[in-house]
Amino acid sequence: MSETQDPPPRSLTTPEKLIAAASQLFRVRGYAGTGIAEILKAAGVPKGSLYHHFPGGKEDLALACADVGGKVMLRMLDRAMADAETLEEALDVFAAGMERAFARHGDWRGCPVTSTLIDGGGPPKFAERARSIFADWEAAFADHYARLGASDPAALARASLTVVQGAWAQARAHDDAARMRDVAPILKALARNEMGRPKAPRIRSLP
Amino acid sequence: MSETQDPPPRSLTTPEKLIAAASQLFRVRGYAGTGIAEILKAAGVPKGSLYHHFPGGKEDLALACADVGGKVMLRMLDRAMADAETLEEALDVFAAGMERAFARHGDWRGCPVTSTLIDGGGPPKFAERARSIFADWEAAFADHYARLGASDPAALARASLTVVQGAWAQARAHDDAARMRDVAPILKALARNEMGRPKAPRIRSLP
Repeated sequence: MSETQDPPPRSLTTPEKLIAAASQLFRVRGYAGTGIAEILKAAGVPKGSLYHHFPGGKEDLALACADVGGKVMLRMLDRAMADAETLEEALDVFAAGMERAFARHGDWRGCPVTSTLIDGGGPPKFAERARSIFADWEAAFADHYARLGASDPAALARASLTVVQGAWAQARAHDDAARMRDVAPILKALARNEMGRPKAPRIRSLP
Repeated sequence: MSETQDPPPRSLTTPEKLIAAASQLFRVRGYAGTGIAEILKAAGVPKGSLYHHFPGGKEDLALACADVGGKVMLRMLDRAMADAETLEEALDVFAAGMERAFARHGDWRGCPVTSTLIDGGGPPKFAERARSIFADWEAAFADHYARLGASDPAALARASLTVVQGAWAQARAHDDAARMRDVAPILKALARNEMGRPKAPRIRSLP
């Protein structure tokens, strides 16, 4: 699930097999469109093991898949931004990482959180979990932005989620990973100028 | 399907009934997750009528639904921006319109184009049609931006699709129509400063 520094392959545990198989199915076919039988078949795991590890069955498994997807994103974000010396550099490296992630996973994948927890017609607690995962991403963006000198890290972090999700949607529609690169110029423009100045007088007309 | 200036209610034609029922189902349950029987039941239309008006059945109907959704968006965009005297005003009115559209439709709705043509696991021609609809939106944004003096209308139009789709995704996740308002400050910031100056020297560090 990591980006480029994976340890050598090892055997997956049963929960890992279930999460890997279910994550792909949920992202391609949606939560409601994925049956337990399909998940078990794809994972090569007997039904009893599913309920042993995930007593709530498909619901618990979906939450676990979204959690893993959320952590993969956090790890990628931290790797991209931790060593950056400027906000511009951080955004360039992050956007390039998002482009590679999209290209590697293929255009068939929705956002691991949205496709599993929001689109799928799951129970209300799914939306709560999605919001919690998004809040974690937003906090991580904000921490990096603050360190890198953004004038309003919170506003830029909130905008980052919007821009990343929109770019992912456009990359899927156009089957073009390069669309993920749009994240960098958009967020740089916001960082440079506007997001940090919410109390500035509003411009009433363009020159 | 229009915003505020609907003519008095009249009886829907059979194709309109089918499109209205199917649009809602596709957006809530996805293309793959919606059966023809459900559509016919929701529309109150016999099966023969579906194939009379949409010879390709569910596929043709999905394309028609996305086309209608695309036209609704175009109409809203034109209404919001046609009378604006500044780009800021156009973006404010447009974002307010998007907020109302989200609030009226409820948080259960995905983008009419993405949820039907991209997420649903439909045939490859679905993605082509989605790109064509998005291209129409982008062209409409660009026309308005050019009239309103944007320095790079095409770049701002492309960013607009990304930002609108991302804001819609966040509004759904947070069940909060007000998230659609984020579209305005983000696009204003881009319009004011950056999107129009792609050839400006890159800023290497923040102040």
